[in-house]
Amino acid sequence: MKVLVEIKQILPEERILCSVADRSAYSYDASFGEYMPDMVVQPRTALEISKLVQLANRHRLPVYPRGSATSLSGGPLPVYGGMVLDLAQMKDKCEIDRENMLAIVSPGVTTGEIHRKAEEYGLFYPPDPSSSHVCTIGGNLLENSSGPRGLKYGTTKEYVIGLEVVTPTGEIVRTGGKTVKNVTGYDLTRLIVGSEGTLAIVTEAILRLIPKPPARKTLIATFEEFVASGMAITNILAQGILPVAMEMMDQQCIRAVENFQPIGLPTDVAAMIIIEVDGHPLAVEEEIMRCAEMCKQAGASHVQVAQNEEERTKIWQARKNVSPALAQVGPTKISEDATVPRNQIPAMMKRLREIGEKYQLNLFVFGHAGDGNLHPVIITDRQNQAEMKRVEDAVSEIFEAAVLLGGTLSGEHGIGTMKSPYMEMELGTVGVQLMKKIKEAWDPNGILNPGKIFPRPGQTKVVLTDE
Amino acid sequence: MKVLVEIKQILPEERILCSVADRSAYSYDASFGEYMPDMVVQPRTALEISKLVQLANRHRLPVYPRGSATSLSGGPLPVYGGMVLDLAQMKDKCEIDRENMLAIVSPGVTTGEIHRKAEEYGLFYPPDPSSSHVCTIGGNLLENSSGPRGLKYGTTKEYVIGLEVVTPTGEIVRTGGKTVKNVTGYDLTRLIVGSEGTLAIVTEAILRLIPKPPARKTLIATFEEFVASGMAITNILAQGILPVAMEMMDQQCIRAVENFQPIGLPTDVAAMIIIEVDGHPLAVEEEIMRCAEMCKQAGASHVQVAQNEEERTKIWQARKNVSPALAQVGPTKISEDATVPRNQIPAMMKRLREIGEKYQLNLFVFGHAGDGNLHPVIITDRQNQAEMKRVEDAVSEIFEAAVLLGGTLSGEHGIGTMKSPYMEMELGTVGVQLMKKIKEAWDPNGILNPGKIFPRPGQTKVVLTDE
Repeated sequence: MKVLVEIKQILPEERILCSVADRSAYSYDASFGEYMPDMVVQPRTALEISKLVQLANRHRLPVYPRGSATSLSGGPLPVYGGMVLDLAQMKDKCEIDRENMLAIVSPGVTTGEIHRKAEEYGLFYPPDPSSSHVCTIGGNLLENSSGPRGLKYGTTKEYVIGLEVVTPTGEIVRTGGKTVKNVTGYDLTRLIVGSEGTLAIVTEAILRLIPKPPARKTLIATFEEFVASGMAITNILAQGILPVAMEMMDQQCIRAVENFQPIGLPTDVAAMIIIEVDGHPLAVEEEIMRCAEMCKQAGASHVQVAQNEEERTKIWQARKNVSPALAQVGPTKISEDATVPRNQIPAMMKRLREIGEKYQLNLFVFGHAGDGNLHPVIITDRQNQAEMKRVEDAVSEIFEAAVLLGGTLSGEHGIGTMKSPYMEMELGTVGVQLMKKIKEAWDPNGILNPGKIFPRPGQTKVVLTDE
Repeated sequence: MKVLVEIKQILPEERILCSVADRSAYSYDASFGEYMPDMVVQPRTALEISKLVQLANRHRLPVYPRGSATSLSGGPLPVYGGMVLDLAQMKDKCEIDRENMLAIVSPGVTTGEIHRKAEEYGLFYPPDPSSSHVCTIGGNLLENSSGPRGLKYGTTKEYVIGLEVVTPTGEIVRTGGKTVKNVTGYDLTRLIVGSEGTLAIVTEAILRLIPKPPARKTLIATFEEFVASGMAITNILAQGILPVAMEMMDQQCIRAVENFQPIGLPTDVAAMIIIEVDGHPLAVEEEIMRCAEMCKQAGASHVQVAQNEEERTKIWQARKNVSPALAQVGPTKISEDATVPRNQIPAMMKRLREIGEKYQLNLFVFGHAGDGNLHPVIITDRQNQAEMKRVEDAVSEIFEAAVLLGGTLSGEHGIGTMKSPYMEMELGTVGVQLMKKIKEAWDPNGILNPGKIFPRPGQTKVVLTDE
């Protein structure tokens, strides 16, 4: 294989993986798909990546950047074979610049490592995807990952002020820099963040940190009526309180969690919300009591404020157990992240119930209620082709419902392979064309993460069954 | 004129301005340049703009969107003649969506109007450029304007989650939406924000609001040594306090302000800083006292905490008087916004002093010290050609100094006509090329705000003197 000979001039052999076993290990992520790459390479510098991308252009070889592969939308899947870049290996730099409140990091560093390192300096990196203990910052950047703290602190994008990237034609370029304010030309930094690896490969990032909030307080509240939980959330925000998180779980979720690891949650309530406030100790103390009061006024059946760190951990454990608990319910888990304007959550919940019943599916809903970012999850069995057909239709209806309610296909998981057929539904033909023009101008040979974001011609629906 | 006949089919005659007097009124902004447009049009809907842009493409007519023309970098200047779009007239919509904490606004609405309208609902729109009483949100969006609150709250970009725009080829498109989290495809919203009107014309924007912080406290501190003021700023941030603003004025500025309108400022100190904290009343009370303590520890000669709103207004008056005070010093004012990493402020101040002395110029420095965004201002006389030559060289050296210290040409004013020759110095050839590829892909006829951001071939220095 001529390509392989050339790659060996760029990387030592032990960082080029071609065996079936190795390639299989890189054929999937946390989403639904599975595709075999032709080879896996483990570059460690921007220069190595630059050379590999130039080579890929000469040979028209698809290039698939990959972190820890926790993507729920198929971001790193090598759908057209080609070369997987294992960037989880590129993790030598995780520097904190205390005076400028910045972190300068390599793409393979985990998000959790950045959290820990920042805290050592009394600083704080807010984005916190559920997989932060294992996911890489490179993946977070390209997918614009988020998590429960989005309501108060925004997403990954709000914290990236500079990048070093390799372009689709193999140039090494820096965007942005070390200043929070920067309006020198177009904002390439934010264009690349969230581009799902189709516009550039990140080789270094400059992240903005903030002072670590000195205190936090957490409460859990249960509601007999779903609408009442929404009212509590709206009223708290109307009071001028901006919690760091407002997490919601429906009855099905609560039951699954309690079944997975019993921690004494009431399984007969319609909804449960977890609210956390952070900031100055005096403010936090007063605000959490007002949040508790608002929950009671909205009709909460039970409200509990965590009195110490142990109680807080227990509350959050319920939330963190959702994913493993649901994974245990059935062999195949389809996780969505349809997002609607906050005041449309009750309407969206109603639609989700209807869709679940219409297609007789095992549907669970939890999510970040404060910012309208819901996670409907369908538990099914990939082997059951008849049910999978119904899942396909249900997923389409979920997306339609979100867009009709003024929302979006994806709040934080990305489009990837799973949602590309629905892009035009939300953005229209011209919107998708504007994106495609950028992609084509930067990547004329279409070698960087092909098969993602943009639908194949004529593709209007995701197909989960074997074709 | 054939073009004019066609325009009259799109707009009523009273919204087409062609007299010399009218065109003169639209020939300048708050920067240095002056260029006569061929005509001025006053569209009021996206559809009218769409038709005008399509016509402009057919006739290869340059199109210059314009708000209140407070730009300091030449953003709206019609450098190649053509058609000015007076968008200050398009101001019918300024709706607050309280439940979703959003403002939905037309481009001609002033930033101050959005502030007022949001506050009526207990909400807060943080970006606050000095000209907020007159500048339009459309201009703020295209230039990504900012102001003193950037340190804690970020820039305009952090608050825009959706746009309706007319593309350079005349299509009407919506980007983003009403959800804070949205990762459906590339972030065209943030690409267009800060693109200085070269990529799209904004016809409506969806802005994110936050709960209005219930309290704020302000202090003013003076320092005999400039370095001590920097130390105070660094130490406050290291304490975990994130002030809403940390404004700095050097001795020359203080003297000019005191000369303009005496309010009892000490004119013998090296620097003065204004610090404001906001948030929960209990937190604010405690934090401002700690800020005062940090200033004293760093060696402040005098610290005063405002005890009431009247004292606060007086403190801010000193800051707000800077621009009018400097404008009074001489006939021509060159305002820059070179921005450096926060810990490089002392080094940058030293370089600015050296440059001012080397070229014997009247140089003043003030700015947003918390985020490294300095405003060096040169007061000169455009008629004095010899001095203007020295100004050209000094401006070049200021940009070089900022970039060498890891900073950027522009923190908040934009590139426009004034800084385009220096783009490659900061971004390199490939960086500028990546931007140009987007521009060319979206605007094949180059009709949208030509002459901005990108340097003319071979242009490496701004020329302020008559050629």
